[in-house]
Amino acid sequence: MSSTDFTVQLDGFKQLVRKINHYNEAVGLMYWDLRTGAPRKGVEQRSEVIGELSTEVFRMSVSDEMGCYLDFFMQHHNLNQLDEVSRKMVLECKKDYDRSKKIPEKKYQEYVILTSQAETAWEEAKEESDFAKFQPYLEKIVKFNQEFVELWGYEGNKYNTLLDMYEPGMTVEKLDEVFGKLRSEVVPLLAEIQKSGQQPDLSCLKQEFDVDKQKAFSRFMLGELNYDFAAGRLDETVHPFATGLNPGDVRITTRYLKEDVVSALFGTIHECGHALYEQNISKDLAGTNLCSGTSMGIHESQSRFWENKIGRSHEFWSKYFRKLQETFPGQFDEINVDTLYKAINHTEPSLIRIEADELTYNLHIMIRYEIEKGLIDGDIQVANLPKVWNAKYKEYLGIEPQNDSEGVLQDVHWSGGSFGYFPSYALGNMYAAQFLHKMEEDILDFDNLVADGNFKPIKNYLTEHIYQYGKLLDPNEIVQKVTGEELNPQYLVDYLKNKYKSIYGL
Amino acid sequence: MSSTDFTVQLDGFKQLVRKINHYNEAVGLMYWDLRTGAPRKGVEQRSEVIGELSTEVFRMSVSDEMGCYLDFFMQHHNLNQLDEVSRKMVLECKKDYDRSKKIPEKKYQEYVILTSQAETAWEEAKEESDFAKFQPYLEKIVKFNQEFVELWGYEGNKYNTLLDMYEPGMTVEKLDEVFGKLRSEVVPLLAEIQKSGQQPDLSCLKQEFDVDKQKAFSRFMLGELNYDFAAGRLDETVHPFATGLNPGDVRITTRYLKEDVVSALFGTIHECGHALYEQNISKDLAGTNLCSGTSMGIHESQSRFWENKIGRSHEFWSKYFRKLQETFPGQFDEINVDTLYKAINHTEPSLIRIEADELTYNLHIMIRYEIEKGLIDGDIQVANLPKVWNAKYKEYLGIEPQNDSEGVLQDVHWSGGSFGYFPSYALGNMYAAQFLHKMEEDILDFDNLVADGNFKPIKNYLTEHIYQYGKLLDPNEIVQKVTGEELNPQYLVDYLKNKYKSIYGL
Repeated sequence: MSSTDFTVQLDGFKQLVRKINHYNEAVGLMYWDLRTGAPRKGVEQRSEVIGELSTEVFRMSVSDEMGCYLDFFMQHHNLNQLDEVSRKMVLECKKDYDRSKKIPEKKYQEYVILTSQAETAWEEAKEESDFAKFQPYLEKIVKFNQEFVELWGYEGNKYNTLLDMYEPGMTVEKLDEVFGKLRSEVVPLLAEIQKSGQQPDLSCLKQEFDVDKQKAFSRFMLGELNYDFAAGRLDETVHPFATGLNPGDVRITTRYLKEDVVSALFGTIHECGHALYEQNISKDLAGTNLCSGTSMGIHESQSRFWENKIGRSHEFWSKYFRKLQETFPGQFDEINVDTLYKAINHTEPSLIRIEADELTYNLHIMIRYEIEKGLIDGDIQVANLPKVWNAKYKEYLGIEPQNDSEGVLQDVHWSGGSFGYFPSYALGNMYAAQFLHKMEEDILDFDNLVADGNFKPIKNYLTEHIYQYGKLLDPNEIVQKVTGEELNPQYLVDYLKNKYKSIYGL
Repeated sequence: MSSTDFTVQLDGFKQLVRKINHYNEAVGLMYWDLRTGAPRKGVEQRSEVIGELSTEVFRMSVSDEMGCYLDFFMQHHNLNQLDEVSRKMVLECKKDYDRSKKIPEKKYQEYVILTSQAETAWEEAKEESDFAKFQPYLEKIVKFNQEFVELWGYEGNKYNTLLDMYEPGMTVEKLDEVFGKLRSEVVPLLAEIQKSGQQPDLSCLKQEFDVDKQKAFSRFMLGELNYDFAAGRLDETVHPFATGLNPGDVRITTRYLKEDVVSALFGTIHECGHALYEQNISKDLAGTNLCSGTSMGIHESQSRFWENKIGRSHEFWSKYFRKLQETFPGQFDEINVDTLYKAINHTEPSLIRIEADELTYNLHIMIRYEIEKGLIDGDIQVANLPKVWNAKYKEYLGIEPQNDSEGVLQDVHWSGGSFGYFPSYALGNMYAAQFLHKMEEDILDFDNLVADGNFKPIKNYLTEHIYQYGKLLDPNEIVQKVTGEELNPQYLVDYLKNKYKSIYGL
């Protein structure tokens, strides 16, 4: 094979990947539009368009053309000739290709239909708080996933294969270890806090806040955090999200509630964290399959870093409390920074994951993780889920759901078969604390930067060490590269202990 | 050929057309997004995505697959077996297919590059008011179009082939006749008005108007005119437009100017007219190539019918003047409906087409039409355009541009090679008057409906006679069907005479 042929092959491969990327961008924009005000009556046909282009993406990803390129570049001597970016592009495509090719097309189509029906069934079941209505769907979904794992193959625990979809390289062995550690420290800390009987004064948050002023504050905050409005926009939606269409177009959405100023404020900062990641991926990766966050866990580490480590810090509010007072005249006059800081960080066992605080949140995740493991290896039967769920809430958080709607039916994830996704949220918290620890060592005066609202050095640090790489590096490579060690839950434990002991005066 | 084979062919053909339609819908949404707030830094890659999908549309339209279907269905006995919709779908595809196939691919690519460069050159030339900078581009564009016409073929005048792209079936012969008639009546009428020395009191329009209030008024008006917000949305843009993505998603944009309340108000009603057309096409045509307005002229007849025939009528303002007063407190207190009516209908020869009034507008179009004809058949040389342009303005409107920017360089159309498009605007005015005349005969109390703000019967009439058909009927078929005769400029002449003689007390 001459070097010209090699170049021709490489150009062809890159062009195909670019085409897939372009189609995904169009689909991404249509999803954004659906969630930010697309007219109701156009949705049915729009869904067909999305289906058409998504099917085309799938076809290209498993096409003979793609197969030929992968056969060629997966040959050892060819793979070794590739530059770093191209090599990783090939490996990512190969992973997708194998994954898709191993599932018989008919089986996959059945699964797609099942999950779309299951989401409707879940909605109804949740509405009526009746798990039995969802159970037959979930049983089939679990069975499909068990079969998929057999077809895909696995090393060690079967659940590893599912974890790997969201967090490449993550294993049950590692998760058991880190979650075990985390749980052994968080549960006693929570008990100690509860025993203390202390409760921050939350009255400052229990007011009505003008929605237009909330919007102005969210917009102001995005500017402060160096969100690039020339490469994004802020819109309203029911379920907030960030979406990176391309590195120059990373959009955020927020939901504003009159009776809850915290929701939009921290929601916006959370999505800003996701967006900063996507806005700062190297332009060299634009149009490739590496131009996104490297994993759900690392992505979530950034949303949570900016939301919690920065946005819920005392330093942050020492800077922005006055702006908050100015934005909502008369509504924060009776309190000081300290009261606000404690109010936005109060902790309390609760039943609903998405409303949980920074300390208890991880316990919600561990419950789901253990249930998913059990479902996939057959230790837990779907029929028993409500019982298992409630028992675990009692065990981990000391409280029990009164019905399925506030218990086992609360999350949409399982109706879509997204087993392996939940751990990302807790991994994000752990990664974030580990990165924070390292940043406090590396960046002089880290706390003062936050207190000055000078976030550029922090964003630049994260860009240099994390953001720019996109999917070029795997999560574990990122963590090693930044912190010099692999994922270590001790940083989150220390962070939570320090923070909450101080807040609750323990 | 068995009937099963026939069905298989028809299903395949329809599926291909549907796929093309889906791709166009995705492209349409991306264009809408670009014009309503897509972040600047994402535009470059987004343009690539648009290019990718548009190229795919072109490929599908001229594919061997399409060619086979057309070969099959264009056979007389097969064409005769088709239902009305499928038959028209085939004929439309055949027209596109032949048109595209007749241009060598390389030539077409050169042309695409040329026109994209020409637009930039035109912008600069306009900015500097220097026609010489645009001249070499325009010369090439004219030459390309002359060649295209030779390749496509023509009947009678060469310009007919270009006209047919925007107004199927329209000819120079017909246009010369109707424009001749129109001109012979409008020019003396305008002279009479000018000689009268009368000028309506325009002071009520020369105020500043709060933009938020303008927005509220536009939104209110759309509701009154039965624009379906569940099948559309209103956004802001620099150059207002309406875009029908599918019949359930027809979007409008408006531009609000603080110093000009008329611009947004009539701009919104104008786009609403386009949107009402697209929102009310029969659902049976959704996903086909017939699901849009039948021609530029008929489309424009609807925007102009709602903007001018309805929105600038005395009856309309007898209903909405109070709402206008309420919306802008204190700003219309000193005048009455009559003053407003005369102000929004004042006429005056002017240099800029897009700012021209209902009476003089058509003269701007005739000038362009005559120049285009001359350019295509070689009677007019590009180098002489500024002179020709200025002479014609002097002749038709009695005024002369002082520079190219307010003269020959004012419109973007020629930089994109859109010869044949301009007549649509004047055709729209003529169709609208002809439809109005018929409606006043067919709908009892037409004027009272307008004065009551009861537009549903009018919208329903237009839906029944025009909107529902989409492209199923050609423009001339529509006009014949609705009015029982072909395009007749007398209705516009009568309408203009009545209206302006009354306003100017002649």
